[in-house]
Amino acid sequence: MSDHVYKKIELVGSSTKSIEDAIENAVQTAGNSVRNLDWFEVIDTRGHIVDGKVSHYQVELKVGFRLDG
Amino acid sequence: MSDHVYKKIELVGSSTKSIEDAIENAVQTAGNSVRNLDWFEVIDTRGHIVDGKVSHYQVELKVGFRLDG
Amino acid sequence: MSDHVYKKIELVGSSTKSIEDAIENAVQTAGNSVRNLDWFEVIDTRGHIVDGKVSHYQVELKVGFRLDG
Amino acid sequence: MSDHVYKKIELVGSSTKSIEDAIENAVQTAGNSVRNLDWFEVIDTRGHIVDGKVSHYQVELKVGFRLDG
Amino acid sequence: MSDHVYKKIELVGSSTKSIEDAIENAVQTAGNSVRNLDWFEVIDTRGHIVDGKVSHYQVELKVGFRLDG
Amino acid sequence: MSDHVYKKIELVGSSTKSIEDAIENAVQTAGNSVRNLDWFEVIDTRGHIVDGKVSHYQVELKVGFRLDG
Amino acid sequence: MSDHVYKKIELVGSSTKSIEDAIENAVQTAGNSVRNLDWFEVIDTRGHIVDGKVSHYQVELKVGFRLDG
Amino acid sequence: MSDHVYKKIELVGSSTKSIEDAIENAVQTAGNSVRNLDWFEVIDTRGHIVDGKVSHYQVELKVGFRLDG
Amino acid sequence: MSDHVYKKIELVGSSTKSIEDAIENAVQTAGNSVRNLDWFEVIDTRGHIVDGKVSHYQVELKVGFRLDG
Amino acid sequence: MSDHVYKKIELVGSSTKSIEDAIENAVQTAGNSVRNLDWFEVIDTRGHIVDGKVSHYQVELKVGFRLDG
Amino acid sequence: MSDHVYKKIELVGSSTKSIEDAIENAVQTAGNSVRNLDWFEVIDTRGHIVDGKVSHYQVELKVGFRLDG
Amino acid sequence: MSDHVYKKIELVGSSTKSIEDAIENAVQTAGNSVRNLDWFEVIDTRGHIVDGKVSHYQVELKVGFRLDG
Repeated sequence: MSDHVYKKIELVGSSTKSIEDAIENAVQTAGNSVRNLDWFEVIDTRGHIVDGKVSHYQVELKVGFRLDG
Repeated sequence: MSDHVYKKIELVGSSTKSIEDAIENAVQTAGNSVRNLDWFEVIDTRGHIVDGKVSHYQVELKVGFRLDG
Repeated sequence: MSDHVYKKIELVGSSTKSIEDAIENAVQTAGNSVRNLDWFEVIDTRGHIVDGKVSHYQVELKVGFRLDG
Repeated sequence: MSDHVYKKIELVGSSTKSIEDAIENAVQTAGNSVRNLDWFEVIDTRGHIVDGKVSHYQVELKVGFRLDG
Repeated sequence: MSDHVYKKIELVGSSTKSIEDAIENAVQTAGNSVRNLDWFEVIDTRGHIVDGKVSHYQVELKVGFRLDG
Repeated sequence: MSDHVYKKIELVGSSTKSIEDAIENAVQTAGNSVRNLDWFEVIDTRGHIVDGKVSHYQVELKVGFRLDG
Repeated sequence: MSDHVYKKIELVGSSTKSIEDAIENAVQTAGNSVRNLDWFEVIDTRGHIVDGKVSHYQVELKVGFRLDG
Repeated sequence: MSDHVYKKIELVGSSTKSIEDAIENAVQTAGNSVRNLDWFEVIDTRGHIVDGKVSHYQVELKVGFRLDG
Repeated sequence: MSDHVYKKIELVGSSTKSIEDAIENAVQTAGNSVRNLDWFEVIDTRGHIVDGKVSHYQVELKVGFRLDG
Repeated sequence: MSDHVYKKIELVGSSTKSIEDAIENAVQTAGNSVRNLDWFEVIDTRGHIVDGKVSHYQVELKVGFRLDG
Repeated sequence: MSDHVYKKIELVGSSTKSIEDAIENAVQTAGNSVRNLDWFEVIDTRGHIVDGKVSHYQVELKVGFRLDG
Repeated sequence: MSDHVYKKIELVGSSTKSIEDAIENAVQTAGNSVRNLDWFEVIDTRGHIVDGKVSHYQVELKVGFRLDG
């Protein structure tokens, strides 16, 4: 990692299944427009409630990728 | 959301299975006494250890609901 | 808990499967060298990305154990 | 304030006009069910955007009131 | 703690004597209206000054209690 | 919100008139280059002073928009 | 700004009208005793409630000024 | 509090006896040079250890006082 | 302090009497296994409630000691 | 700064030499694709260790630039 | 440190050379008007960019000094 | 990093020369008793002042190392 510069972007992924699935959705969407994705950091976990049950999870995360690859 | 006022309460749910299950337990308990639940925010995730293994997860969350519905 | 003193150590566990599995790995490793493990607190959740997908989760946690047991 | 105990509740007020108006809405709604309101603290300010313009402000606040009045 | 859901409320207790006494006052007032109180967490410690001396301490704390007891 | 991924960007708007006007300026500038703006969050409020008076307000905010619209 | 040293002081301004007016009051009071005021940063926004309505806003801010002007 | 401007200064008091005594020492020292002291807020509590015992407590606090009294 | 390296460990002490006593208990327990204890920092103060009264205080603290003594 | 809108991006620069050099590397890389860079803010400083020595510093920073220049 | 009261002030130093030099500049300026300076704490590190390069570093720091010396 | 568990310890290094040198001192001391050091994170930067000049820098850092290497 010694000679590189990385950029971090902030995304919110969502899923009706699990926290991990919401993370995966955000990461895969990021991969559509950015190459060299390297790591993610979970910033916040929240979600919506419908009829008294969790309807989907929302995970806010930062995704880091190498700029000079 | 433009004309409403919301209230947030703070709960701790627990589960022997998963973080998502602990969230669901807290949300469903909240639904027993409060109507119009709208969203949740995870504040903290912790748990207890018995015999060197995770015995259950505890998730602290805020639950928001509409007051003027 | 009234007469005890506890110590907390900071660990990072990882897993290719789930956040819960990464926690469990860190807790079980802690149990190899420390007795009387009592609770854990999740500090941070992150992970690495390979080929545009989550390759593994990393969970940073504090683990508390009783010193005077 | 020397002999009293206060309780704080967390509300989200909204307004299409201003941040101050969103605070006022939350405070007045709180006053419908709680007496002896004494102070508020702004926790977060956000809002929704419709057609590229701010459609309404949402202000998250804590409201404190005297329990033993 | 494995099967329970807990609620946390936020109180401000005060005392002319000590920080511990302000905590005790808030806890005892909470006990007048809520059963199954289980723990407290100090959030903030402050106080008022009269004639250049501390006139009373104010301690802001969260109090947790079991909902499904 | 269940199937979407959102991106958040960080902006600083300014205005000589009010905090709300500084927010509106940042949101409208964001709308020039990004579609599907959905919400904003105020991160910081500051400003400059000239001749002992507030000359303009600066509001730092995050703006979220839908990526997969 | 390259050769200067700045000092920051912490003030609480208040106003019955608006958040902006409370900021302006604090800044103008600071200007009575300090020269070269340069910027302010809002730290906290709160206020008092009388008869179920906001009676005045209190804004806590830091004010920076050049020492070596 | 509606028409006033307050200033806050940051002090560290110490005491070999108790946290409350360290607060009182800081408040009384502040009173030697500043009039109209109104409140304090504890920011941090720490201390030194000599021969395996607490030798004195240090309490960092902010003290607020009225400027326009 | 110019040539030394220090290590900090995290402990939770408890006491049925006071916050200061909980700190002292943690410090003295640390002294059983570590030499050259130098300072402590209070991280969190909490406690348990039994029968509507504080049964004991728990103070989380960091304790620093010199490694190269 | 009164009429402008600024955008902030988050970068991680690295250097085997110094913290300042890691900042400079990130700033210069940002300048390859963004004009009107105006300021930076250090968010986090970390680094990697190889063979018991610091092999390189990593500095996470936000870089602000004028959008409407 | 057992019998003293300390005051902390907040400064911003700057330097075209290094972070350490910005700290030193702020400390030396503080020494022109305050005696018994004892320690500093770095609060924030930032800087300005001119022509795509760091033009100077700005370091925000608190400086503590003994009041009763 | 996928199958490993890491431990983090907290150290304070110091140096009369620079922030980087204080980090290096802490890392090298950690290396005397712990193998497989992998990364460090700066938590806090402070220092002491003697005769109105910085006498040495103190850097508080966390150091991570692999447990199961």
